[in-house]
Amino acid sequence: MSESIFDHLRSRFHLPEDRVYLDGNSLGALPTTTPAALANTVEQQWGSDLIASWNSHNWIELPLTVGDEIAHIIGAEKDTVVCCDNLSINLYKALLAALELNPSRRVVCVEDQQFPSDNYIAAGIARLLGEDRCAIRALSISDMTSDNLNDAAVLILSHVDYKTGSLRDMQKITEAAHQAGSLVIWDLAHSAGVIDIDLVTTDVDFAVGCTYKFLNGGPGAPGYLYVQKRHQSVANPISGWMGHAAMFDFESGYRPADGIRRFLTGTQSVLALSAVRSGLSVFENVPISLLRQRSLTLTGDFIRQLDARSFSVSVDLLTPRSDAKRGSQVSIALNDAFSISQALIDSGVIVDFRAPNIIRFGFSPLYNTETDTTKALEALETIIDTRRFEAPEYQVRATVT
Amino acid sequence: MSESIFDHLRSRFHLPEDRVYLDGNSLGALPTTTPAALANTVEQQWGSDLIASWNSHNWIELPLTVGDEIAHIIGAEKDTVVCCDNLSINLYKALLAALELNPSRRVVCVEDQQFPSDNYIAAGIARLLGEDRCAIRALSISDMTSDNLNDAAVLILSHVDYKTGSLRDMQKITEAAHQAGSLVIWDLAHSAGVIDIDLVTTDVDFAVGCTYKFLNGGPGAPGYLYVQKRHQSVANPISGWMGHAAMFDFESGYRPADGIRRFLTGTQSVLALSAVRSGLSVFENVPISLLRQRSLTLTGDFIRQLDARSFSVSVDLLTPRSDAKRGSQVSIALNDAFSISQALIDSGVIVDFRAPNIIRFGFSPLYNTETDTTKALEALETIIDTRRFEAPEYQVRATVT
Repeated sequence: MSESIFDHLRSRFHLPEDRVYLDGNSLGALPTTTPAALANTVEQQWGSDLIASWNSHNWIELPLTVGDEIAHIIGAEKDTVVCCDNLSINLYKALLAALELNPSRRVVCVEDQQFPSDNYIAAGIARLLGEDRCAIRALSISDMTSDNLNDAAVLILSHVDYKTGSLRDMQKITEAAHQAGSLVIWDLAHSAGVIDIDLVTTDVDFAVGCTYKFLNGGPGAPGYLYVQKRHQSVANPISGWMGHAAMFDFESGYRPADGIRRFLTGTQSVLALSAVRSGLSVFENVPISLLRQRSLTLTGDFIRQLDARSFSVSVDLLTPRSDAKRGSQVSIALNDAFSISQALIDSGVIVDFRAPNIIRFGFSPLYNTETDTTKALEALETIIDTRRFEAPEYQVRATVT
Repeated sequence: MSESIFDHLRSRFHLPEDRVYLDGNSLGALPTTTPAALANTVEQQWGSDLIASWNSHNWIELPLTVGDEIAHIIGAEKDTVVCCDNLSINLYKALLAALELNPSRRVVCVEDQQFPSDNYIAAGIARLLGEDRCAIRALSISDMTSDNLNDAAVLILSHVDYKTGSLRDMQKITEAAHQAGSLVIWDLAHSAGVIDIDLVTTDVDFAVGCTYKFLNGGPGAPGYLYVQKRHQSVANPISGWMGHAAMFDFESGYRPADGIRRFLTGTQSVLALSAVRSGLSVFENVPISLLRQRSLTLTGDFIRQLDARSFSVSVDLLTPRSDAKRGSQVSIALNDAFSISQALIDSGVIVDFRAPNIIRFGFSPLYNTETDTTKALEALETIIDTRRFEAPEYQVRATVT
């Protein structure tokens, strides 16, 4: 019965037939409704209705409308999420807001191993404000105890680790931080849409994320920012007109809007937001708990099948075997990981590589299947056993310079 | 002969046949190539090629590729413009960078009447840094002399005023600022694509703009930031991974990229950038000086025809009659401006209203014609003479709350 639900969900995506796509944790697949949704926005709303669409198609409210749709997926209340800018910029806003809310403290604790952009953003703020107002301290997850946070203004960490796929205990860490007098900013990039999150009960202060991974909003799709209601009167440091109380009155002074709207900056891409909205429509009437269950089934099955195979090289599982500690990807560490990942991609199994020696297999509960697992592991075994990865074309790592 | 060029350019836009579109200074019209360009990005690049497109379709370089295309239009060198985020965020980055480059000064001079978001951004920075590091001073354009700028760290002003359409003397004001030891940030929102700008010769320090007006990039299309080469070693305060020297090495510390790349923050919308790129393609092989000439012909003709008509109410021209002082719009001030603007729109002449009493007629040299002028002024005269604007449906101003 539930199988038919997942068949239906899978049918809502455009997936190339000749490939196994296990990189939805990096770029979500294209929802079948998105081309037409975007064509409508472009041709009808922009092309024909032109400037009037800011009102008639309610473009002006899209960051909030889409924000409310995301709120539903991340266990947040209405009017607490805005979809805009990108994750890094939203983190920048949240971090400065948190420092303002906790003025007697200056220490920003960051997770030592998390996606580095979060820590780059924190470093930029420390540099800007100077050490009197902001000092960074890197902690491991196991060090995030009340004792270690008792001088922290704010803690920034990822709900699911991008490299290993480890899921962190949001409730426990948030409680420890609050007990120590620290605020918390959670990065939901790798958990939104695949983990049942409850930002309200866990009393999270701020959260940030992006919509291009498991939310299927398209390449580089906008980020989002959650600000819990009791913090919504803090300042947005990037005080642009879209966050003004009366943006079309063009007042000379900045007067922030009430509520979550004040965390907007300037004008947002309507095309990008239309695509996000189309991606989110797949989640309608689908309980996140069902997706979480499906995700655990898929990743658990992958781990069991991985264990059952004997590879001719050493393959280390980095992802926790415990359901309670696992996100929606499985990561392995092995020698020649880069070349093997390239050979996998060449054979039609789309995965990704993370330096120095990690291959990530991401599972979207909306469209991945057990068949994907079988095909991926068969390809992995063949590539390793035949040493096909040693071919010269798999050795050169493309770098962006 | 040149008429046929403009017929050709006009044919490159989708324009509703039953309307006169004079709001390209707010939202540029849809280029005919954009629907297919976007469909290709969505269906082929995202849908079929998926994650590989970051390299194979060079998504990763789009902010720089598109930046170089904009550079060509605003008279900047290659590798000095990045297309990303929005105008307000780019101004935020530029302003903090300027303060860092001029560390012995703290005064930020802003134009008193400019588009208020620019001043809101400056106010947010002053609040964040405190008065020891940043103080705002509002000046009128005529007060922007060396004497008045001799303690300024940086001056922020608009090249064309959004309300009146006045064009400012970039060379003269930049020189005065530099003579006084101040840097300058120019807001090109209303001049890029319609005025021949030369950022190199005028030695402008920073410039910001958006791509949704005369560049026809689509609703809410991304902003851009120009940083002249000698300033490119300054810090970007929003130091996200896209500005890192080696973003895919995931180093724990932030190490800024060389050159303009460091002014990137997080991931940018590929869909939005694809649409911008399609919009910019219309400018290929079209000298901006030709567009400037055409723009002056259109707005000059509009002013002459306006002068020649006798309206039954007082209509004040706000836009300079002098070609050298006029951007690409004509603004009038009159009683009942809001209701009259609504009646104009209802009659098929798309203009916009700016509080308290201004109607703006924007001319895009790429697609507007003399016929648009005649139709717009006929409609204006009829609406005023018949007092059609007094109908109740034109009285209620929609507000965003």
